[in-house]
Amino acid sequence: MPRTVSDGGEELAGDDISSRTGSRRRADNTHDGYKVGFPPKKGAFAEFSDGVKETFFSDDPLRPFKDQPKSKKLWLGLQHVFPILDWGRHYTFGKFKGDLIAGMTIASLCIPQDIGYAKLAGLLPQYGLYSSFVPPLIYALMGSSRDIAIGPVAVVSLLLGTLLQQELDPVKDREEYTSLAFTATFFAGLTQFALGFFRLGFIIEFLSHAAIVGFMAGAAVTIALQQLKGFLGIAVFTKKSDIISVMKSVWGNVHHGWNWQTILIAASFLAFLLAAKYIAKKNKKLFWVSAIAPLISVIVSTLCVYLTRADKQGVAIVKHIDQGINPASFHRIFFSGPNLTKGFRIGVVAGMVALTEAIAIGRTFAAMKDYQIDGNKEMVALGTMNIVGSFTSCYVATGSFSRSAVNYMAGCRTAISNVVMAIVVMLTLLLITPLFKYTPNAILASIIINAVLGLIDFEAAYLLWKVDKMDFVACLGAFFGVIFASVEYGLLIAVAISLGKILLQVTRPRTALLGNLPRTTIYRNVEQYTEATKVPGVLIVRVDSAIYFTNSNYVKERILRWLRDEEEQQEEQKLSKTEFLIVELSPVTDIDTSGIHALEELLKALEKRKIQLVLANPGPIVIQKLRAAKFTDLIGDDKIFLSVGEAVKMVAPKHENA
Amino acid sequence: MPRTVSDGGEELAGDDISSRTGSRRRADNTHDGYKVGFPPKKGAFAEFSDGVKETFFSDDPLRPFKDQPKSKKLWLGLQHVFPILDWGRHYTFGKFKGDLIAGMTIASLCIPQDIGYAKLAGLLPQYGLYSSFVPPLIYALMGSSRDIAIGPVAVVSLLLGTLLQQELDPVKDREEYTSLAFTATFFAGLTQFALGFFRLGFIIEFLSHAAIVGFMAGAAVTIALQQLKGFLGIAVFTKKSDIISVMKSVWGNVHHGWNWQTILIAASFLAFLLAAKYIAKKNKKLFWVSAIAPLISVIVSTLCVYLTRADKQGVAIVKHIDQGINPASFHRIFFSGPNLTKGFRIGVVAGMVALTEAIAIGRTFAAMKDYQIDGNKEMVALGTMNIVGSFTSCYVATGSFSRSAVNYMAGCRTAISNVVMAIVVMLTLLLITPLFKYTPNAILASIIINAVLGLIDFEAAYLLWKVDKMDFVACLGAFFGVIFASVEYGLLIAVAISLGKILLQVTRPRTALLGNLPRTTIYRNVEQYTEATKVPGVLIVRVDSAIYFTNSNYVKERILRWLRDEEEQQEEQKLSKTEFLIVELSPVTDIDTSGIHALEELLKALEKRKIQLVLANPGPIVIQKLRAAKFTDLIGDDKIFLSVGEAVKMVAPKHENA
Repeated sequence: MPRTVSDGGEELAGDDISSRTGSRRRADNTHDGYKVGFPPKKGAFAEFSDGVKETFFSDDPLRPFKDQPKSKKLWLGLQHVFPILDWGRHYTFGKFKGDLIAGMTIASLCIPQDIGYAKLAGLLPQYGLYSSFVPPLIYALMGSSRDIAIGPVAVVSLLLGTLLQQELDPVKDREEYTSLAFTATFFAGLTQFALGFFRLGFIIEFLSHAAIVGFMAGAAVTIALQQLKGFLGIAVFTKKSDIISVMKSVWGNVHHGWNWQTILIAASFLAFLLAAKYIAKKNKKLFWVSAIAPLISVIVSTLCVYLTRADKQGVAIVKHIDQGINPASFHRIFFSGPNLTKGFRIGVVAGMVALTEAIAIGRTFAAMKDYQIDGNKEMVALGTMNIVGSFTSCYVATGSFSRSAVNYMAGCRTAISNVVMAIVVMLTLLLITPLFKYTPNAILASIIINAVLGLIDFEAAYLLWKVDKMDFVACLGAFFGVIFASVEYGLLIAVAISLGKILLQVTRPRTALLGNLPRTTIYRNVEQYTEATKVPGVLIVRVDSAIYFTNSNYVKERILRWLRDEEEQQEEQKLSKTEFLIVELSPVTDIDTSGIHALEELLKALEKRKIQLVLANPGPIVIQKLRAAKFTDLIGDDKIFLSVGEAVKMVAPKHENA
Repeated sequence: MPRTVSDGGEELAGDDISSRTGSRRRADNTHDGYKVGFPPKKGAFAEFSDGVKETFFSDDPLRPFKDQPKSKKLWLGLQHVFPILDWGRHYTFGKFKGDLIAGMTIASLCIPQDIGYAKLAGLLPQYGLYSSFVPPLIYALMGSSRDIAIGPVAVVSLLLGTLLQQELDPVKDREEYTSLAFTATFFAGLTQFALGFFRLGFIIEFLSHAAIVGFMAGAAVTIALQQLKGFLGIAVFTKKSDIISVMKSVWGNVHHGWNWQTILIAASFLAFLLAAKYIAKKNKKLFWVSAIAPLISVIVSTLCVYLTRADKQGVAIVKHIDQGINPASFHRIFFSGPNLTKGFRIGVVAGMVALTEAIAIGRTFAAMKDYQIDGNKEMVALGTMNIVGSFTSCYVATGSFSRSAVNYMAGCRTAISNVVMAIVVMLTLLLITPLFKYTPNAILASIIINAVLGLIDFEAAYLLWKVDKMDFVACLGAFFGVIFASVEYGLLIAVAISLGKILLQVTRPRTALLGNLPRTTIYRNVEQYTEATKVPGVLIVRVDSAIYFTNSNYVKERILRWLRDEEEQQEEQKLSKTEFLIVELSPVTDIDTSGIHALEELLKALEKRKIQLVLANPGPIVIQKLRAAKFTDLIGDDKIFLSVGEAVKMVAPKHENA
């Protein structure tokens, strides 16, 4: 295959390096018409700003603003902050029909859940309802997900409750406890807002999928166990959430603490709920059966208790929910004193967990309906919603997985379904809260148990086991951390495992020995391609990662170990000695000073062994940095090739296939 | 080029996947005789143990033990722990001559430094000398570096002093302070030992080169500024180490706190030391001039003060150093009480920093003389040395950069030079400490200033600037952190920057658009190779990193952005629409469940756009995981190709060069 020097080649031949190394390079290094490309050098500022742009503005949010008149820019900016201005203009009655039905459905689902979740957070039941009124309205204005259902969720409620109860007693210090909850909600919102505003949203990506699966399942088990109090009608129950304390509480009360009437109610309605769920699962069209089952359970069980006066038999009931919509709570937030610090700490943790859940939901449904979600923008919306919520007696709200799924299946079209839900909740607060008086706590326990069971994702765990054993171990770690210690400890384990995995991955990158696929110029991993054969006298190693300070020593020593292994084999089989070591740099996307230093040490070590170092296909950044550090002068420009095939052709021209 | 189905191909065609997808696959996917290799599946245990082995035993330390008789194994094991048993057998008089001269030279250098460094750590001068006696002896038995010079060093002394003085006053609580120093030393040793023993040595790799350069330079400046107390003869000096406090102390004392006699001595000898260093730098053979200059300075200045009785003029002198070798100090270590926790915390930090320095030195000189250093083994040696040291009144010792360089240049051959140095220090302790009585503190200040200036590595900083602007910023951050806040704060910044860089690197991997190099089947980054041309109707994107939970969303969205950019261009230029998206997976060494999920979402998004997804060259682990997760079934085995070239040939057969 004859090749000629291309235009690009000519252009590059005139640069400072080639003129320094003179004609030798031009002759040697333009093999086959191409040499390793050397992209035009950027200035220090351009380099820096490119890095910043790719990190923080990788989604190029300013693209639509480009080349627009000022008034248009303003309008676009407003639309950016309030997406409703955009999609609201195309809103139709057809869409509204979908949103109305979906909104009613999720409202029927959320009302009993809200009351139960508020208890989980250690708050009075009305706060759960408050949190399903204001936040969904704000979200409808600012959010860009069309399917998410906003409100209190089980895991965040549990986490908030656990953290708050470490500081205060929810019964004895009821007022202060509630105020601290608002403070935490304020800072949760602020955290979410700040992450989005400063485009640091990628921070939540550091929680690995495996860790989340384990954490969620652990939290679900913990929440379900907590519900045994209401389910079994136990009056004195442990405040700890670990499985051992809970089991002690449960079995310690078995003889005189359990209430059979309560258990009867709880068990029969749980059976009903599970049956409804089973039906919905078997026939997707009947999803509404499981969606309205909780509300039906509440109505029927409340009636039962009212008619039989079972509350006099020891069946615990809700008793009282404040009537009326959210009171203002701005004055209750602690902006000074020790409670400020506590609220801040709790808020940051709860805000991050809430964010993780909401973004995951938003992305899942966006992918299903194929629209884009801007993570950072979502965070600003969620943050604003929680900040406003904290001023109006709400605690941390976020996207609920189960309710969002119902919302989606009920045919929601836009965030208006959240508005419908909020209106229904408002009417409930204004008109019918007194009717909840006789609702048994047991039914709330059943509803919550039924809801959280959906958070245990066996399929995902099985997939983890099949795909990556280490990930599965991480998942188990987070799971057992939550159920045997506490939800925050489990979260800590989840974060530690995730970070540990990242760090491990960058210290121990993979390397591979390459061989030639017979009758081609392709070189591939000999472990993957059994047909790949080694080139006599040439060892080809591919480094499968950027070479950074974290792995530069490992990479150097691993390459030398490949060489040592090879030399041992050669001695045994009396083969010709290695004369060239080709390092395939295609996957090496970047290198830092430590990496260059490691290459220099490798070069030195090879020189002592009389082996020549050859580099194949360095990328644009790598070649730039190698030149900046003068490593190219050290190794010689004629030792840097476009591909492994070209390199082999030059160093071992006798090799039959090269 | 005619190709036939290879043996390996036939073998693979029989596996479960191909039988499921039937004959279609066999016909389509064996293009050019090769299909994507599918390595034999490993069991769960093998997979796990391979991971562990590569992480913790990447250097394969047990290799020499393989297939040896038991007695030989025992002997090899002993040699492994005490390398002196190995190299000691080949020790010759010729080597001893080199070691003797080098040992004497570094002894002359270390004695005055030790006294000064002990002060930096807030300890009495003899503890510096103690630390240059026992630890080098232990190291000589267990260490594997031939060039390192063991003893107290400036940065660790400063760090230890700063941390200890946060807990106790070095003058008022002298006894308790010293005991806490031994406790910290014990735990520093234990940390080092444990890291090495459990093969966690890679942890120190997480401190980036850039951060170390900045940290070291900052520490050097801080130490030099601290020496202004002795240099200017100021009696009342700040205890803080930041530049602002120190400068206030210096200028606040300018009118009545400075002592001109002290300044005269300090300045003239500093000039002498710098001149000696300059000579040594100009002529490498005269390195001994700078090596013995400190000792000469001490002798001459001591004589001067003794003869002129300048101490009566306000020139501060050493006054007293305990005579005799190290007293036992095991009983002084706090094994209980609050000082245990403090000592532990301080010890862990100081131990890690000491380790970083020693390993860096060991590796540098090992590379120069081309021998191997086993990092984990070194850590065990250094740890044992400090544990024994803490029992014998030593504080944290490690490898000194300046003394190791002198050791190397003076022609040391083995660790025996450390033994020689230790013996000289012992004789000093036994015989001549009284002679140091009149040594002016000013001369120690000059010696330390002269020594630490070498820690400021302008060249390295300049290289960082040239190679990577972000690294340079990290370096500056650590530097300013140390000089404006404190040495521990600077260390924290250094660690945070290092970790931040790692995390950033895994969230924002690079992607590149590939084009065909005309007249070849090679596809390269179009930004690097201006001659690369796009294939009409086909978009080729390369992902330059493993696809993990940290970056899976980014990767998916970045690929879609490439597509959007391309489509915009096509509209403008009225080109044919993209029909195929080839994702080149060569650099993708691994993928996790989040990554597979992202690929599924990508597939879905492309299907809506009527674009087919094609994968090129997945590695062994990636193809295994894609199969385990059934993604290969989803995309179709006939959409996975050996290389981009093959893929283009199949999807765009009309393209002229493919």
